[in-house]
Amino acid sequence: MSAPSGPGAAPVIGIDIGGSKVAAALVSAGGGIEALEVIGVPAATSKGVPDDPANIDEVLLAQIDRLISVGCESGRAPLAVGVGAAGWIDAEQVIRFSPHLPWREDHLAERVGAKSSLPLRLVNDAKAAAWAEHRFGAGAGYQAQPGMASHTMVMLTLGTGIGGAVVHRGELLLGRNSMAGEFGHMVMVPGGRPCQCGGNGCWEQYASGNALRALARTHGVGGEEAGPATTAAARAGDERALELLAEVGRWLGLGLANLVAALDPDQIVIGGGLGEAGELLLTPAREALGTALPGRGHRTEPELVAGALGNRAGLVGAADLARRAVGTPHR
Amino acid sequence: MSAPSGPGAAPVIGIDIGGSKVAAALVSAGGGIEALEVIGVPAATSKGVPDDPANIDEVLLAQIDRLISVGCESGRAPLAVGVGAAGWIDAEQVIRFSPHLPWREDHLAERVGAKSSLPLRLVNDAKAAAWAEHRFGAGAGYQAQPGMASHTMVMLTLGTGIGGAVVHRGELLLGRNSMAGEFGHMVMVPGGRPCQCGGNGCWEQYASGNALRALARTHGVGGEEAGPATTAAARAGDERALELLAEVGRWLGLGLANLVAALDPDQIVIGGGLGEAGELLLTPAREALGTALPGRGHRTEPELVAGALGNRAGLVGAADLARRAVGTPHR
Repeated sequence: MSAPSGPGAAPVIGIDIGGSKVAAALVSAGGGIEALEVIGVPAATSKGVPDDPANIDEVLLAQIDRLISVGCESGRAPLAVGVGAAGWIDAEQVIRFSPHLPWREDHLAERVGAKSSLPLRLVNDAKAAAWAEHRFGAGAGYQAQPGMASHTMVMLTLGTGIGGAVVHRGELLLGRNSMAGEFGHMVMVPGGRPCQCGGNGCWEQYASGNALRALARTHGVGGEEAGPATTAAARAGDERALELLAEVGRWLGLGLANLVAALDPDQIVIGGGLGEAGELLLTPAREALGTALPGRGHRTEPELVAGALGNRAGLVGAADLARRAVGTPHR
Repeated sequence: MSAPSGPGAAPVIGIDIGGSKVAAALVSAGGGIEALEVIGVPAATSKGVPDDPANIDEVLLAQIDRLISVGCESGRAPLAVGVGAAGWIDAEQVIRFSPHLPWREDHLAERVGAKSSLPLRLVNDAKAAAWAEHRFGAGAGYQAQPGMASHTMVMLTLGTGIGGAVVHRGELLLGRNSMAGEFGHMVMVPGGRPCQCGGNGCWEQYASGNALRALARTHGVGGEEAGPATTAAARAGDERALELLAEVGRWLGLGLANLVAALDPDQIVIGGGLGEAGELLLTPAREALGTALPGRGHRTEPELVAGALGNRAGLVGAADLARRAVGTPHR
């Protein structure tokens, strides 16, 4: 490991609470990762998080302790902890709601923060990923371009559902409850497929990892791995798998047309597990977007690209937002 | 008329190009209106604008000349001209597209500006209305509240279609082409009713003045005035008319739930001709929004109110944006 080089070199701990795993690492001021560890969540339910949400606390505290030790051993004690989680997290860092996990008015940040020696920042995982792509990934090029101060980036993370966020003029768009960006629960089909949020016809029922898995099952590809298996088969040229991904991609593009009508972004970045399908998904999405886009032919269309940071975007972004919250300059 | 009281007192000309009328007035720095004139557009097509879009130029130039005279006679020569129009207007003030009017790549601002002695600013009419409500109307109270710096206001103008805009942290959200806010062309019903934009199932086909008119016709209330006639009948207690407005209101609320999922605003302001139906529309909309809102019960819902400035919001906002563009301090 490199020697310390002033306060700017101190790392921040980044943690991403995923479906069945927790990923944690030290994240540098430049977005670099070291000492990454991905561990299964003990006593996880079928939904991936302990029945008692407080059980996740011990997992987080153990990871924080480990990474403090790693940092201190190299003379670079971490400054703070950033945690990304798939919940709707308000300005007081309370997880008010989660469509896919049992969090309701949950005070994870307060509980874990009280037992940790470092300041802790809890953020929505898609907002964290968007921030990371904006700072260090697919959106970073825009910052360097003159006249791009008003750059608007829309980020979607396609996993169990659709997470989302907007970065506008270099800031995350938060909204009244800090819940802006829940694009996955925009209704695509009134009265359509039931959604875990309690609604019907939500976009994420048609254009997420879960949507691909459900579609694959109806075509005889079963199990939890139906989504990744379909992507792998499509990569190998399987016609049916390609068509399944294309169907999800078309729904993705249709919903993106709505977001472009509303937000007219410069760039749309697609991350999350399903995002790793890349052009197998994005090419049909781009076609559907181009066809459905209002005012097509009389506007410049947004760039639609895969995220550059893969499944590490969440922990990198959570760490960088925590770094920002403690006031360390990072530009 | 009052005597001049320093440069800040100089008015700006505000003009709103509506469906079949052009409204023009002098607008003070405080958003006050004087010398208002509303005239029918000569040689208007059934869609309300001359077949040759250039014909509107003479109407605008005549209004500008008249209002310069009015201002100068009272010793307060206007500073600039702001024009609001129902078009998708880019950063170079070219009307790239309009779903309801024959503008395509139209250079109205350049043509009229070249013939006028005053600097001219052309803006989308819904963005102009949103700006006016933010500065002087329904959203003005938020500016005065501490901690409201991040206030997000969504504005919809319900007329022929649905116009829209977002004011975020005191600025209009513009986007890559300055076309953000075209909420009316978000698809509510895939494969649904054909829209003038070329798409199908757009929200404005279900929740606009045109939508109410179409609905009224199927219930035997015909003609161009079917919308206002239905609103008037509803005000008088007519059950069928109330139900027609309620149906439009429910579609309005369903679409608003999507916008709240995406943007989590503090406030939603409803203007435009149909907006004048007020609570006859907003009460059923509020109910539908409350039912459809994802995360309901775990979030603070946005305030949903009618605009405070009525059908003058467009010209007031266009004038104030023109004032801003010429750099006159107005706060």
